[in-house]
Amino acid sequence: MKKIINNLADIIDEMMNGLAGSYADKIHRVDDSRVLAQNDIAEKRVALVSGGGSGHEPAHAGFIGDGMLSAAVVGDVFTSPTPDQILTAIDEVDQGEGVLLIVKNYTGDILNFEMAQEMSEMNDHEVAIVVVDDDISVENSEFTAGKRGVAGTILIHKILGDAARNGASLSELKELGDQTVAKIKTIGVALGAATVPEVGKPGFKLGEEEIEFGVGIHGEAGYRREKIRPSKELAQELVTKILADYAKKPTKVGVLVNGMGATPLMEQYIFMNDVLHLLADEGVEVTFTKVGDYMTSLDMAGISLTLIDLGDENLVAALQSEVSTIAW
Amino acid sequence: MKKIINNLADIIDEMMNGLAGSYADKIHRVDDSRVLAQNDIAEKRVALVSGGGSGHEPAHAGFIGDGMLSAAVVGDVFTSPTPDQILTAIDEVDQGEGVLLIVKNYTGDILNFEMAQEMSEMNDHEVAIVVVDDDISVENSEFTAGKRGVAGTILIHKILGDAARNGASLSELKELGDQTVAKIKTIGVALGAATVPEVGKPGFKLGEEEIEFGVGIHGEAGYRREKIRPSKELAQELVTKILADYAKKPTKVGVLVNGMGATPLMEQYIFMNDVLHLLADEGVEVTFTKVGDYMTSLDMAGISLTLIDLGDENLVAALQSEVSTIAW
Repeated sequence: MKKIINNLADIIDEMMNGLAGSYADKIHRVDDSRVLAQNDIAEKRVALVSGGGSGHEPAHAGFIGDGMLSAAVVGDVFTSPTPDQILTAIDEVDQGEGVLLIVKNYTGDILNFEMAQEMSEMNDHEVAIVVVDDDISVENSEFTAGKRGVAGTILIHKILGDAARNGASLSELKELGDQTVAKIKTIGVALGAATVPEVGKPGFKLGEEEIEFGVGIHGEAGYRREKIRPSKELAQELVTKILADYAKKPTKVGVLVNGMGATPLMEQYIFMNDVLHLLADEGVEVTFTKVGDYMTSLDMAGISLTLIDLGDENLVAALQSEVSTIAW
Repeated sequence: MKKIINNLADIIDEMMNGLAGSYADKIHRVDDSRVLAQNDIAEKRVALVSGGGSGHEPAHAGFIGDGMLSAAVVGDVFTSPTPDQILTAIDEVDQGEGVLLIVKNYTGDILNFEMAQEMSEMNDHEVAIVVVDDDISVENSEFTAGKRGVAGTILIHKILGDAARNGASLSELKELGDQTVAKIKTIGVALGAATVPEVGKPGFKLGEEEIEFGVGIHGEAGYRREKIRPSKELAQELVTKILADYAKKPTKVGVLVNGMGATPLMEQYIFMNDVLHLLADEGVEVTFTKVGDYMTSLDMAGISLTLIDLGDENLVAALQSEVSTIAW
């Protein structure tokens, strides 16, 4: 295994310190914690907290900033943060208007964030949870009951962060979050596996020309392996499957093409070009686009495609509003 | 070779269209050209143009925007754009105040940008060139006389773009550019080679635990191969070598840790953490930081470290000023 690290035991600490040290104008690490938090949290607003296992950088700390998250809780690699770590984040950011937790749908994360919610309520915090389960590739999975939460989570960060900045209450945010999650659908394709530092070898093995559809961001099994095909055909499969999953085909969508970590932007742009052509052929108008590495899986090669139904114009405005984060 | 592409002959076209299609609010592709240009170029200002071979995305088109570049010229993979393509960019962006070309120091790029400068002067454009040669690893190289131009180029985009926005003349920009290039020093480390699509196999081969110091962004040979060491020791080697290369050790610096394409942000943050500690130990104050994939080499694994002497406070302000680009 070739990785730019020191001792395995120090990976998360050093990563957090490097990140906080690089962007000290925006974020800080809460002392002796696994929490990265915004420097100047606006008063009289609901605070947003997300988090999960490490290895998905820039998620989630890269999305801390006014109009997005107030804090991110950082677990070990591909491992949920613990309830006390999440509680530290809630204590840090609550401005008296309550805290919304945005959680990707993995069994461990759900358990720990719910436990933190219970504990925090004993501390007089008002806390709600929005669960993101945008990955429509497979039902249930290695670490998940139901669908997995993947790249679409960053759209929830942005939309709810914008609403919170505009004064939405905790219950309004919870309702908007649940409604919006249902509009977001993602499928990934892996070309190569990630190597978790503590494991030291790739999490799965693909043949020299083989790809796998529907792989999760921790390397969870997808729904089909086959020989790699041209970008156009990959795009066709993903666009068709995602559009078919909507009860009613959307007339306007946002498109997020997300790199898994080791896939050059060149390929992501080529894939996006194919997606945009296919959506035009389908008569679906694209009113928001984003392409790059936002929800990665360490050094996994591959991409995911996320569509969000943007029939509601307010969502477009929320996605386009200005923020000053590290990574949006 | 597993890549998300269609026909090899269409890679650049499709990449440019995907990029322009994703960010149509900011940039457009000049018809039938290899030029991506800013949508609303401010009048009465010198325009900045950069470019070079593809494969370094988000460089250079990701840095188009008010306060940075006005246009980027896109060559084939790892191949200079041709003079007529560069001339198209100059024609597109010149607002009557002249055009500054920012060129990485590779023989092919220098030849073609200089040729374009000559041709454009016949068209009554006033054009100057700033050559960036920040890679201090080796003198001369496979495609370079002198030192190579690498990740430090994005700092030049930012500093000169800010100066142009503030009304600097073409000759002032040329002078500021030449002075600033001399303050920027970079060394890279490769953990694995990139695969150029047209070639179909990695450009060089490293042993299972081997790394190479000083590799260029096209896979040009570096100065030493050895077994991978902890991040702290890699950082020590790069920081020491770069500081020693300054005639007078700077008291204040900016730090750019740049991912080569396939290296997770986690590792980049850990490396940055080590660099920041080493600079503190050296008594060097860090007044600007940036970490991420800015000047890549397709799917090369590795990083580069860039330092810029920021003794001049104006440079800090220029680096920190607000811009709205795709990738800064």
